[in-house]
Amino acid sequence: MIPGPVKVPQRVLRAMAKPMISHRSADFEKIYEDCRSRLKDLFDTENEVVVLSGSGTAGMEAAVGGIIGEGEKVVTVTNGKFGERFTELGDRYGSIVPLDFPWGTPFDLARIEAALEDGAKAITMVHNETSVGIVNPAREVGKLARKYDAVFIVDGISSVGGNEFLTDEWGIDIAITGSQKCLAVPPGLAMVAVSKRAMDLLEEGKGGYYTDLKAHLKKASKNQTPYTPAVSLFFALQEALKMAAEEGFPERRARMAALAGGVRAAASALDIQLFPQVNEHTTYSNTVTAMKMPSGISDSQLRGGMRKRGVVVSGGQEGLKGKIFRIGTMGACTEADVLRTIQTLELVLEKEGVISSLGAGVEAASKAIEA
Amino acid sequence: MIPGPVKVPQRVLRAMAKPMISHRSADFEKIYEDCRSRLKDLFDTENEVVVLSGSGTAGMEAAVGGIIGEGEKVVTVTNGKFGERFTELGDRYGSIVPLDFPWGTPFDLARIEAALEDGAKAITMVHNETSVGIVNPAREVGKLARKYDAVFIVDGISSVGGNEFLTDEWGIDIAITGSQKCLAVPPGLAMVAVSKRAMDLLEEGKGGYYTDLKAHLKKASKNQTPYTPAVSLFFALQEALKMAAEEGFPERRARMAALAGGVRAAASALDIQLFPQVNEHTTYSNTVTAMKMPSGISDSQLRGGMRKRGVVVSGGQEGLKGKIFRIGTMGACTEADVLRTIQTLELVLEKEGVISSLGAGVEAASKAIEA
Repeated sequence: MIPGPVKVPQRVLRAMAKPMISHRSADFEKIYEDCRSRLKDLFDTENEVVVLSGSGTAGMEAAVGGIIGEGEKVVTVTNGKFGERFTELGDRYGSIVPLDFPWGTPFDLARIEAALEDGAKAITMVHNETSVGIVNPAREVGKLARKYDAVFIVDGISSVGGNEFLTDEWGIDIAITGSQKCLAVPPGLAMVAVSKRAMDLLEEGKGGYYTDLKAHLKKASKNQTPYTPAVSLFFALQEALKMAAEEGFPERRARMAALAGGVRAAASALDIQLFPQVNEHTTYSNTVTAMKMPSGISDSQLRGGMRKRGVVVSGGQEGLKGKIFRIGTMGACTEADVLRTIQTLELVLEKEGVISSLGAGVEAASKAIEA
Repeated sequence: MIPGPVKVPQRVLRAMAKPMISHRSADFEKIYEDCRSRLKDLFDTENEVVVLSGSGTAGMEAAVGGIIGEGEKVVTVTNGKFGERFTELGDRYGSIVPLDFPWGTPFDLARIEAALEDGAKAITMVHNETSVGIVNPAREVGKLARKYDAVFIVDGISSVGGNEFLTDEWGIDIAITGSQKCLAVPPGLAMVAVSKRAMDLLEEGKGGYYTDLKAHLKKASKNQTPYTPAVSLFFALQEALKMAAEEGFPERRARMAALAGGVRAAASALDIQLFPQVNEHTTYSNTVTAMKMPSGISDSQLRGGMRKRGVVVSGGQEGLKGKIFRIGTMGACTEADVLRTIQTLELVLEKEGVISSLGAGVEAASKAIEA
């Protein structure tokens, strides 16, 4: 029950075990074409979509390295671990204007506007901050990006397919997602949607070589890749996209929303505080719920106790180690998965004397999910 | 029968379909540790080995981007398509001294020495040029690299595990291979062996971000990866390395050598000329045989005819399109695979009137393989 890599459905695992094909064959081109077309639906976009054989970070490098060159400014807005990766990337390729908000707290839109007013070629943000379970206001930041003519780069890695994500409506120039999150594919592919405006700004020979967005776009127009792709993962991606289409993209998001709502209801019933601070533009995530560690129990007691009972949840990262724990509700996650997780959590809390009776969390979660 | 991605054995495909595990788990660390240790045997090295989730090109970028910075010179020796990739990489990150020999012809070692005499931080070469089926003299170039204190970077992508490849004995500072060639794993992983000398030269923040060799080495010391790895491909890699160890690394190379010898014997019996020019330091490849297109038949007749009969072989790349065809003998390839391929080739040649009777190629191949 960690927020990715998530459990991979049998259908997708089986697809991956198909015999190898040449990546220069018409068969591969057909698969890539089908994936690209389905990904446009997933991203809610008319923009071009390319698939890189690498982790989400490869996609983030493709975006920042392709747009930002020496001396060019990028505003990097951060309220968690993954936002900081954009800052590192911006620093490597150009000049950064970092706007760091405390982890798990909302962006201050006025500060963002002030930074853009000073002039910047691009602005980056993470939509769903996996490290703190918060959904940041892409629509609002997108309006500011357009107002000040900055390229809008959004990490949607743990978001696309789980939270609402409107690439075109929000004016996202480069949107990135990863295979191992809401799509429930094994890790190893990054999907990148690129607007016409961003494409026009890409230059040959800029940024990383393996992640060169211009090279990937050029080859994608023929449904090919510039370097040998991870063919088996493309088999898996195609199957997972078919499964998502069968369930329906909105239905899938609604399922994850209901499951995360169930986790939050259980937390409330068990007197566990949610970690992120939200406001009118900022919401709790549908794909990962971050909760404060209850007093009277340590991280190793809570997560170790759950692991011993067969359920793996995540801890906090960096400064939040030992202070929070996180439950993912992405991909193929079901109500039964969530209830089993909450039940296991209750057992551990009771064993350590944090709660005195069992059942309140499961009942609250079940009611919330079925509402 | 193309020179990669090659057919993947059932055992490896099944390993890939195992349920997902967290890349931050002890289970993953154990797999990575085991793979790294087995890869040292494969590379014949005491150097550190890291695995990047990307194609061989990602490994080549890790090497060049990590070592060569602005204004630093790299001699890039080329006699085929993949050597040119090093030239592109060197040009992106530093200053290139390209030594281009005609595709498929031997290196001129005197010219290489002259280039190194002028001073260069590094020198790159491809050991087994997949595009032309030639094995270049890594031992001899390695001696020159040591003499002039240049970092020696070798692309062993279609070589390691198929041809003799002595990383330490030849003084290779950075050796690269890919998963989809001699190991018969699906594409998507690059393995990089790095000497102490090269490690000391790596700098933080240099080269690509996703392919940052220093970051990968740092995490590998704890058997972790800096970014989410393609976990399923690591399952496959571990299984393939076990299979290779069961067969024995020398036995495996001997098998590929015998099979390539069979292809060459068939070519000779059918009056088909081999494409590469060899000399005392330069040999034909064990993993891919490049042959000139016989007169009286076109590329589409030859390769299309074979494909129609169920056997896929490769054509020439770039300037060699239509002029050569290539048969791979890597990975899990067997004598039966080679004989079926030669038989199919004969059928097509006879149909187009290039030869008048069947059997000479198969007989020659079979005799050579069993000798």
